[in-house]
Amino acid sequence: MKFSQLITKLKESQVGLISQGIQNDIEIVSGASIELAKELEITFLERGNILASQIETTNASAILLPDDKELIQVAKNRNINWASLTDPRLAFAVTLELINPPPKPNELIHKTSVIGDNVTIGKRVSIGAKVCIGNNCSIADDVVIHPGVVIYENVEIDLAVEIHANAVIHSGTKIGKRCVIHSNSVLGSEGFGFVPTKNGWRKMPQTGYVVLEEEVEIGCGSCVDRPSVGKTYIGAGTKIDNLVQIGHGVSTGKACAMASQVGIAGGAKIGDGVILAGQVGVGNRAVVGDRVIASSKSGITGKVNSGEIVSGFPAIPNRIWLRCAATFNKLPEMLKILKTLQKKGSG
Amino acid sequence: MKFSQLITKLKESQVGLISQGIQNDIEIVSGASIELAKELEITFLERGNILASQIETTNASAILLPDDKELIQVAKNRNINWASLTDPRLAFAVTLELINPPPKPNELIHKTSVIGDNVTIGKRVSIGAKVCIGNNCSIADDVVIHPGVVIYENVEIDLAVEIHANAVIHSGTKIGKRCVIHSNSVLGSEGFGFVPTKNGWRKMPQTGYVVLEEEVEIGCGSCVDRPSVGKTYIGAGTKIDNLVQIGHGVSTGKACAMASQVGIAGGAKIGDGVILAGQVGVGNRAVVGDRVIASSKSGITGKVNSGEIVSGFPAIPNRIWLRCAATFNKLPEMLKILKTLQKKGSG
Amino acid sequence: MKFSQLITKLKESQVGLISQGIQNDIEIVSGASIELAKELEITFLERGNILASQIETTNASAILLPDDKELIQVAKNRNINWASLTDPRLAFAVTLELINPPPKPNELIHKTSVIGDNVTIGKRVSIGAKVCIGNNCSIADDVVIHPGVVIYENVEIDLAVEIHANAVIHSGTKIGKRCVIHSNSVLGSEGFGFVPTKNGWRKMPQTGYVVLEEEVEIGCGSCVDRPSVGKTYIGAGTKIDNLVQIGHGVSTGKACAMASQVGIAGGAKIGDGVILAGQVGVGNRAVVGDRVIASSKSGITGKVNSGEIVSGFPAIPNRIWLRCAATFNKLPEMLKILKTLQKKGSG
Repeated sequence: MKFSQLITKLKESQVGLISQGIQNDIEIVSGASIELAKELEITFLERGNILASQIETTNASAILLPDDKELIQVAKNRNINWASLTDPRLAFAVTLELINPPPKPNELIHKTSVIGDNVTIGKRVSIGAKVCIGNNCSIADDVVIHPGVVIYENVEIDLAVEIHANAVIHSGTKIGKRCVIHSNSVLGSEGFGFVPTKNGWRKMPQTGYVVLEEEVEIGCGSCVDRPSVGKTYIGAGTKIDNLVQIGHGVSTGKACAMASQVGIAGGAKIGDGVILAGQVGVGNRAVVGDRVIASSKSGITGKVNSGEIVSGFPAIPNRIWLRCAATFNKLPEMLKILKTLQKKGSG
Repeated sequence: MKFSQLITKLKESQVGLISQGIQNDIEIVSGASIELAKELEITFLERGNILASQIETTNASAILLPDDKELIQVAKNRNINWASLTDPRLAFAVTLELINPPPKPNELIHKTSVIGDNVTIGKRVSIGAKVCIGNNCSIADDVVIHPGVVIYENVEIDLAVEIHANAVIHSGTKIGKRCVIHSNSVLGSEGFGFVPTKNGWRKMPQTGYVVLEEEVEIGCGSCVDRPSVGKTYIGAGTKIDNLVQIGHGVSTGKACAMASQVGIAGGAKIGDGVILAGQVGVGNRAVVGDRVIASSKSGITGKVNSGEIVSGFPAIPNRIWLRCAATFNKLPEMLKILKTLQKKGSG
Repeated sequence: MKFSQLITKLKESQVGLISQGIQNDIEIVSGASIELAKELEITFLERGNILASQIETTNASAILLPDDKELIQVAKNRNINWASLTDPRLAFAVTLELINPPPKPNELIHKTSVIGDNVTIGKRVSIGAKVCIGNNCSIADDVVIHPGVVIYENVEIDLAVEIHANAVIHSGTKIGKRCVIHSNSVLGSEGFGFVPTKNGWRKMPQTGYVVLEEEVEIGCGSCVDRPSVGKTYIGAGTKIDNLVQIGHGVSTGKACAMASQVGIAGGAKIGDGVILAGQVGVGNRAVVGDRVIASSKSGITGKVNSGEIVSGFPAIPNRIWLRCAATFNKLPEMLKILKTLQKKGSG
């Protein structure tokens, strides 16, 4: 795509184009980070980015910039095509999609797929090789199911969902519009519920189901369990990374982000816009308010109020944790001083 | 199922029925938690449950109660069918199974499955679509294998085992009676054993195998590795949640419970009835006594004596850890006081 | 294999054979640990091994020893076949491979596999049942692909790679010579990249790809994500255990070892020969120098210099952490003493 065409598209996309300079209307072939970009590639810089000085040396042929006169001047001096935008990162996302349009699915039901009785399938649906779909499922228009996916019975898949290879969807699961289910993830599996008896653990039947609202993503290898009764619920626009565990009966709000290896135990309630960093744990029936941020490896039990930033285990406010963690290193020294003082005090 | 029929079944099940009141012999259609239950649904309360007051407002048509006169009186007043039992949770488990009997398997070897040479298959076995079974396997009566499962060679699967979709079972694995292997889990994979050499890591061949005793459950995405020599052993009735790692040569006792994202490193020995909460780690060759409980995120190295409850990393007795963790928040303040005292002391 | 034949093979393998004693040229049937070895089995001992005294009681028929006169004398006295070597563990690895040669692959493209257009396939390639391979892939000589594997388009697989059952390889991935990809792992999946907007999270297209250099291993259920631009890179000889997350744009050096449940966030740079123990986390864009060792559960953010051994979160030098962790238990007592001193001081 020519740089001039890209500018036209960015205008149409309403991503906040402010101004631009076409120094040389080259064909943009791909995107790259500023330090690795080569000729015919486009890159971007955000306000305050520590790589800003790289604009002096980058080999990129085009750059998306914040509205910053100095950066624009360097781009002009270096004869690099440029555009300034309110959010260069967002514009770069749009640009990458424009120059690398996602592969068009086949719109084909592969002859090696095995489809049960009473399955309704919408228009323009693509079902890959070796896919197995159980009885009484419904699959809406524009759904793409990659090879090797196994869908049990009574599953509802809404418009334009994409399910990647070898994922497994258990009975009763409802998947909202435009969700993306990544490879080898498992939705609607049995929750880990057992009753202690004198003869060992007896399974509590898991008769509930899983609901994903629209535009949810579930990462590779992640698991969302169904509960004994009721449902496990993932709010619209919530994005879940790889190898995350969502226990039975958990509910999350809208637009949360959960990084890799997060584990949320059964019955926890997560608010809207919550961000959980890598390897965070949330305990059974914990309650996490809206917009809470938990830094990596923290562990939440009990209740966290809306808007809090927490760290550590047990999780405490981040500003306190930072000071405590910094003092932790001084523990042996503190003990030594304390013993000296104690000796003096008793002397 | 009519409530009166359920009462009859609960008597037969010997789950400790004490008394009951059939106020209105309705059809019970499903189970629900007390705060969400609707008409025609059954719920339960345990002794001391914080939701006990919800019995005043629940819309459930039937309730399983402890032997508590006040609760029974409320049920009577509100015209709710009730039963009192020694363990209402256990009775609820039995009830859910009675009103939601697990789907009857197909008893069919799907024509798209690929079955190797010299495989013995018992009676009433169900083998789903796209299942691959290697040579010299034995599959006992009443086994259910869901679509997409891959079984390598020389695997022994005992009576009434259920293996969920896309799980992988490697060579030599022995799976005991009534085990449940959940979706996308992997049994008998190569242990992570390498010998350092001047040319990098050289693989230690993993010639051992994995044994699951009867009634073991392995959660979705969990991995049980085989060792270089000998076996990795999971004791009868041990329940393992999703995304758990069991390293090569680990042995566990009977009736353990391991929550999601637990990791047990190679050669660790776990006793009977051990409970490991979410994200717990157990180090190489650690020895964990019977009935040990490790709270979430704790890390065990070395030895933990039978009956201990441990927390933190390195894991210490839980009662001490609770006090230490509570004091951790005061570290900056403690340092400040200490410096003041030190100044005074030297003044 | 007769013990005498094994000695001949060990000489040929150049694993540092020093001397040997054939007491009784039995057939060696398998390997075992010293405490469990039975007749006709071979075992080994390393220098300083705490099990050394077991040589007095082992039932093994043969043993690989360090160059230690006392141990050799015991072996002679007990009429056990022995060999002394510079690295008995390495020799045991070679021995296990000699007596348990890995199963010879089928060299067969199974008729139920589905292979796309323009796929080049080398000599002696084995492609299992139900394997799906997308268009424009290249598969070199001696590659083994087990049942159920799904390979998207434009994937390059070099000589003698082995890919285990139900693994998924996404578009653009390049897998170097002799790599081993274990069951249910996922390579080249979309990185977890989203741009915050007023309408929620917008996906940053992930247009990059994943490169594994030669002799890399990726454990069961592990995920290696592709980045928005550029590549995620795993250096030659790096071994990755089960359930590990490698984020988008990570690069690792050569001959690293990463234990189970390690998580490396996007953009982190890992040097050569780095060892990360179980459940370690590495933060976004962290920089980890060559030969760094991080003990289990530690969390690295920022930068760690080459050769450091770190522990804890935030990770600090191991020697300091050990002392701090030992003092942590004393926190409540320290607080008590401090309050007493403060009272006195102010009295």
